Amino acid sequence: MSQTYIVDLKNNVGKSVTIKGWLYNKRSSGKIKFLQVRDGTGIVQGVMAASDVSPEVFKQGDGITQESSLEVTGTVRADKRAPGGYELTLRNVKVIQIAEAYPITPKEHGTGFLMENRHLWIRSRKQAATLKVRAEIVRAIRDFFDDRGFVLVDTPILTPAACEGTTTLFEVEYFGDKAYLTQSGQLYNEATAAALGKTYCFGPTFRAEKSKTRKHLMEFWMVEPEIAYADLDDVMKLSEEFIVFIIQRVLKNRREELEILERDIAALEKIKLPFPRVSYPELIKLFKEWGHDFVDGNDLGAPEETVIGEKFDQPVMIHRFPMKVKAFYMKADPKNPDLALCVDVIAPEGFGELIGGGQREDNLKTLEKKIKEHKLPANAFKWYLDLRRYGSVPHGGFGLGLERTVAWLCGSEHIRECIPFPRMLYKIYP
Amino acid sequence: MSQTYIVDLKNNVGKSVTIKGWLYNKRSSGKIKFLQVRDGTGIVQGVMAASDVSPEVFKQGDGITQESSLEVTGTVRADKRAPGGYELTLRNVKVIQIAEAYPITPKEHGTGFLMENRHLWIRSRKQAATLKVRAEIVRAIRDFFDDRGFVLVDTPILTPAACEGTTTLFEVEYFGDKAYLTQSGQLYNEATAAALGKTYCFGPTFRAEKSKTRKHLMEFWMVEPEIAYADLDDVMKLSEEFIVFIIQRVLKNRREELEILERDIAALEKIKLPFPRVSYPELIKLFKEWGHDFVDGNDLGAPEETVIGEKFDQPVMIHRFPMKVKAFYMKADPKNPDLALCVDVIAPEGFGELIGGGQREDNLKTLEKKIKEHKLPANAFKWYLDLRRYGSVPHGGFGLGLERTVAWLCGSEHIRECIPFPRMLYKIYP
Repeated sequence: MSQTYIVDLKNNVGKSVTIKGWLYNKRSSGKIKFLQVRDGTGIVQGVMAASDVSPEVFKQGDGITQESSLEVTGTVRADKRAPGGYELTLRNVKVIQIAEAYPITPKEHGTGFLMENRHLWIRSRKQAATLKVRAEIVRAIRDFFDDRGFVLVDTPILTPAACEGTTTLFEVEYFGDKAYLTQSGQLYNEATAAALGKTYCFGPTFRAEKSKTRKHLMEFWMVEPEIAYADLDDVMKLSEEFIVFIIQRVLKNRREELEILERDIAALEKIKLPFPRVSYPELIKLFKEWGHDFVDGNDLGAPEETVIGEKFDQPVMIHRFPMKVKAFYMKADPKNPDLALCVDVIAPEGFGELIGGGQREDNLKTLEKKIKEHKLPANAFKWYLDLRRYGSVPHGGFGLGLERTVAWLCGSEHIRECIPFPRMLYKIYP
Repeated sequence: MSQTYIVDLKNNVGKSVTIKGWLYNKRSSGKIKFLQVRDGTGIVQGVMAASDVSPEVFKQGDGITQESSLEVTGTVRADKRAPGGYELTLRNVKVIQIAEAYPITPKEHGTGFLMENRHLWIRSRKQAATLKVRAEIVRAIRDFFDDRGFVLVDTPILTPAACEGTTTLFEVEYFGDKAYLTQSGQLYNEATAAALGKTYCFGPTFRAEKSKTRKHLMEFWMVEPEIAYADLDDVMKLSEEFIVFIIQRVLKNRREELEILERDIAALEKIKLPFPRVSYPELIKLFKEWGHDFVDGNDLGAPEETVIGEKFDQPVMIHRFPMKVKAFYMKADPKNPDLALCVDVIAPEGFGELIGGGQREDNLKTLEKKIKEHKLPANAFKWYLDLRRYGSVPHGGFGLGLERTVAWLCGSEHIRECIPFPRMLYKIYP
């Protein structure tokens, strides 16, 4: 029996179709039973009247439990009152398997319980909607760079050296050697940008951080573009265009999912170019005006990101942080060598840092000195220094965290719902 | 100074442009110097006549070493004899950095040396072409599934249990627990397919195999679709359509790169639907006819893949292998329970297995028995068994190895050239 997906019902009004899916919910009212069926693309209500089906099929309806698998055949009817706008007048129901008592019932459950049943929880409407928005964001990200001539390069996950310190690294035994799970593809991207001009990587990254916040995962996805012959201004311009592109795409293709998630869509619709630009020294002044207690010279923390997110309804680009709070590879601002040519993009509504990026140090001598100052293993960075030895150019890029972006666009309180199977502190099941 | 990319010269004939790149090669002939410049999007020859530039610029030309970074300004001229079809009549050359003596010269180098300098080797024409074909294949893969309603789900890299045995797993210390780097997202995909209907994952996978062949990497990318309500025939049909889609896309968008790689393009152009289908029992007969020594009941090895690849000029779908050589989750053929409802797709020209897939066991009792027989840790598979407890449906999918596909399409002898930074036995630098 050929299968029609619920998402395609709009093209099949008046026709007889077969939906293959699972029972989402049911109720009955005298001689009529209402079966809500989901198939992964949507949910549709099947209306089964005793007069339309065989007595066996009608009777069987009572025994179909939540999440039982079934194939329902019926005629598609447009009905504005129906969720999704369509209903099925059922002619037949074929049960594939009667499900055991499903652990996730329509009543409220604690998050710990739901996370233990993550493999089932993703079947629920809001979780599925979040995963679809995530997939849409991934496609938007890839289209943005592919259409602008960036070449995708998959940088390695197993790496010999640390990009930023070693305390938050997952260690792997590699045939007698020590290897680490990557925290960023940036250093490799600097090599590929020198080979291919404009490149990006987009893959999983890892951080063995003993923190249990709503904004941290041990394993998360990050997209990192890198451009040869680019400066901080280029990086900032690309960042804001990129974020607006993603939002527009999601608003266009996933509005229904945003509605399921009860997202304040107006807050996303008002995001527009250009984003406010605030230098770190300017930010210090603003913090004073706002009465926010902050030590000049420190890096921003979660409280600062929250304050900034409340004061602006647009993403804000904070640029030129003090050199000493930033990574060794950052280039100093020639106009003020205490400041780095870098930028953090902070989301509105308290969703925190979306992007970190900047211009890279391209002078061999300066970089050698920095590596020494940061007490990094010189040997592991030999190839990285080669990039400054053989045709060094001004270059830069940024990294955007996927799950943070999903959380922002979906309005998710907790980042763990923004990835199919989150990896958190002490939690690696399922 | 605004930048034009070499790939866009065709739209700038007669205009003055600035190319920002690196010196690929040079030669001189009396009062004319020829600078070949690459910028990642292509290579163009700049012709510098003593009469067209200042004496300082002309003289400086002698000192520009291979891979020095430079900006060249000149007028675009169409010239059929020129590689790429265009030349620049130079008016100015600005050197950004004079490169030290570049280790990779136009002479021949050993592969070991080139792999030690992988971060520089990717700048060469053939390596860059391979990486561009790879990026094109990735985009084709994602478009194929996205356009057919599959939802991308990123399955976890850090996993608590092994999909197929534990001897080839990389182990990671996870906050006092043991975790392993994933070898496949399939089991998770079975959960997401039950939630979303049609899904796919596409990420890095790992295999700690002590083998040093031309076809193995420790870290490689794999795409794995999974479909609820699908049987082996659906999986086979999707496999062949998928492979033809990828080839057509690469032939359309990356012909120039295939030519740089001296690929036999005709061999790719003749790949067409449907692919030959050969059952394992039929294959045993064919091996006898061909005089190839093979023990009935064994799995295929590299010699068998080579023989099959020589006898067909199309990818071949070998289906229904003996149950006992296949993984525990395979469904037995109801018509012959000794055979599994599975398929391997073998590439022509000796490029080996591209795809492995099939229909999954969907019966709870049978699967519980299988897990016991294979001595797998029951606890780790509790969630996986839940999928058969709550609305089990016939379902299936496959996995395609990215680097194998790149190797085939590029005609690469060695898979290590098909990923930017390969991870091989004892080799994790750069």
